[in-house]
Amino acid sequence: MITTQEAKHIILQNTQNFGIEDIPFMQSAGRVLKEDIVADRDFPPFNRVAMDGIAINYSLFKNGQRKFKIEGIQPAGSKQLSMQQKDNCIEVMTGAVLPNNCDTVIRYEDVDIIDGIATINVETINDCQNIHQKGKDKKQGVVLITKNTIISPAEIGVIATVGKATIKVAKQPKVLIISTGDELVDVHETPLDYQIRRSNVYTLVSLLDKLNISSETRHIPDNKEVLKEKIDSYLQEYDALLFSGAVSKGKFDFLPEVLTELKVEKLFHKVAQRPGKPFWFGFADALDMSEKNVYQNSKNKKNTVVFAFPGNPVSTFVNCMVYFYPWYKKSVEVQENIQNAILSEDVNFKPNLTYFLQVKLSYRFGHLIATPIKGNGSGDLVSLTEADGFIEIPKTEEIEFTKGSVFPVITYRDF
Amino acid sequence: MITTQEAKHIILQNTQNFGIEDIPFMQSAGRVLKEDIVADRDFPPFNRVAMDGIAINYSLFKNGQRKFKIEGIQPAGSKQLSMQQKDNCIEVMTGAVLPNNCDTVIRYEDVDIIDGIATINVETINDCQNIHQKGKDKKQGVVLITKNTIISPAEIGVIATVGKATIKVAKQPKVLIISTGDELVDVHETPLDYQIRRSNVYTLVSLLDKLNISSETRHIPDNKEVLKEKIDSYLQEYDALLFSGAVSKGKFDFLPEVLTELKVEKLFHKVAQRPGKPFWFGFADALDMSEKNVYQNSKNKKNTVVFAFPGNPVSTFVNCMVYFYPWYKKSVEVQENIQNAILSEDVNFKPNLTYFLQVKLSYRFGHLIATPIKGNGSGDLVSLTEADGFIEIPKTEEIEFTKGSVFPVITYRDF
Repeated sequence: MITTQEAKHIILQNTQNFGIEDIPFMQSAGRVLKEDIVADRDFPPFNRVAMDGIAINYSLFKNGQRKFKIEGIQPAGSKQLSMQQKDNCIEVMTGAVLPNNCDTVIRYEDVDIIDGIATINVETINDCQNIHQKGKDKKQGVVLITKNTIISPAEIGVIATVGKATIKVAKQPKVLIISTGDELVDVHETPLDYQIRRSNVYTLVSLLDKLNISSETRHIPDNKEVLKEKIDSYLQEYDALLFSGAVSKGKFDFLPEVLTELKVEKLFHKVAQRPGKPFWFGFADALDMSEKNVYQNSKNKKNTVVFAFPGNPVSTFVNCMVYFYPWYKKSVEVQENIQNAILSEDVNFKPNLTYFLQVKLSYRFGHLIATPIKGNGSGDLVSLTEADGFIEIPKTEEIEFTKGSVFPVITYRDF
Repeated sequence: MITTQEAKHIILQNTQNFGIEDIPFMQSAGRVLKEDIVADRDFPPFNRVAMDGIAINYSLFKNGQRKFKIEGIQPAGSKQLSMQQKDNCIEVMTGAVLPNNCDTVIRYEDVDIIDGIATINVETINDCQNIHQKGKDKKQGVVLITKNTIISPAEIGVIATVGKATIKVAKQPKVLIISTGDELVDVHETPLDYQIRRSNVYTLVSLLDKLNISSETRHIPDNKEVLKEKIDSYLQEYDALLFSGAVSKGKFDFLPEVLTELKVEKLFHKVAQRPGKPFWFGFADALDMSEKNVYQNSKNKKNTVVFAFPGNPVSTFVNCMVYFYPWYKKSVEVQENIQNAILSEDVNFKPNLTYFLQVKLSYRFGHLIATPIKGNGSGDLVSLTEADGFIEIPKTEEIEFTKGSVFPVITYRDF
């Protein structure tokens, strides 16, 4: 049985390139930028007035002049004026171009205007004050946002400013989420005594939505032939298949067997962790498959990774975040940000396994505090609603983990 | 000039009720639940087998029996079997109902099966082991998720399990985002020397998207009559109007004047903060408006709040997160989660104003560390892409804020 580190290492060696697509910039929030965004002009593109007031020549103020005749108005969005007489002033509005032959702006609060004459009523002003100098923030041609940035509202503003109505982003993977298990009925159905409703596929769809991946779902009954036939066709179409269930030791857990028969290379089965141990991961190489004549129509076959998660709700949930998320992020070349949190109480855990402990998170004085949630094991999906995430307690001979220890944390809630 | 606390207090006294709507549960992630989600059955709904293996009577094992004849198989999703002979066993699969007349499950790993006889090869087993008891997690009728929860993938799973194909959530506000300023051209246009492209409206749309609010946008030229006519009609249609620009002291900053003429009650103008000082906030009461005969067709008039943010990009950005976000959250009755972060270096700030300082965030040993980003003031929208959020340094007579101090933090990136 391999460790979580080994499992993650193998998964990260099997990332994929989904390609690049052009999309309207307003649909790009949350997506991964695949080009550098460059300043098309200086930032700001002109000496920009930063306060409503009057523009003058500083040298005259310095020489004692306090009264300035108003020669005109320079509104934002109008062509640059030129001051005709050096000892006059021009009224200027925030966002306007600084008029020619002016170098300093004095805000209205520091000026009295009577009969077309502005009188400065403060004793000190600075040369060039209240002007946002051309190119001060960034020079034309400079890279403003680098490739592989995740686009947030901050980037949206910059992309708009440089006029990139469409931008290049990483394509999203084509993902299919498959449930198995004859005990499952659909959400709108009323289950019989021995049945339950399907829920893991919806949880997985929702977890992928958080990465802006729209996935599809299917259900396959616990029948080996049907399973094989369906998976065969899905392998030709999708970048990733996510299963929930049918990977344990049960009589009807055909999945590992079927995947092997379909020449999907098993890279591991079972990880030394709780919950989520019977996790199966494999890779189907398109070229390899084609040579083996597995597919009738292998021309358009994609490489496909197969994440076959155990069927318990908490197991599926944990494994999706612990393994699928980093696989996706590395595939689209995004840096993984590891958060960590401080354990609020002692925890005992005997098995020599990595322990993904459900926790409630809170901030106290800049510290992220993780308080354990006591669920009833991996089948207890309600416990997920009482928690905010998981801390990862490493596999070790130790049994006791003390209050105040720091562990990596994965959260599924936006604070 | 009021403080940020006073401003926020006034805004939170002017929240609105947007109503409730029924939506398909798979569209509900990120929305605010407006009903309690109740267990329709016990959780689990039956004594659920938690391991693949055999089910026996514990008393027989206790009395020394180790060999059990296999009487049948109980797969997941099939009707409950009854064991006919007390000293036999039944093979059981994870997720199946525990057969009648059995009370304990032994996993395959601890059993050898030869010729239809299962021999237990371990010395100790526990009574009732490997069974997830009916109702252990939750009893039928219990509230599983309370009203006003923000729905995450964890809740999606539970909602599916209890069969709520549609659920009640808070309606989202109808929001219009309006840009003014004649210096602005659209994203696909090439600006003249004294023009710049519109960006704040897109940033605001994107910031609202993070709250799952789809907003609309309009541009109005710097013309008082046009402004008045347009706003008049918008006030009848929207729950909230967000402006960016035209609220300072400029000659063409008609907005406060126009709003007053339209009987929108000014609740404040200008807040003691940097950036974002010339922020105007007001409220248009539907009933009040109707009495005053302001509107031609006031029958369907809504109450409307007006957030008129200053036009500088960083000001608009900060104010949307500092004021609009809490207004929305309180309107839909969601608890605000205040994060805080630790300042990584000394900061000097002279003006007696609340200071929203741009910071880069990182986790170190469970501590959230805020490292200041030096931008070029509120006009520098590129600086937003270099930061992750803002810390709020309170208005005080102090000038120096020391490394290690803790301040509330607002972030716009998902870690």
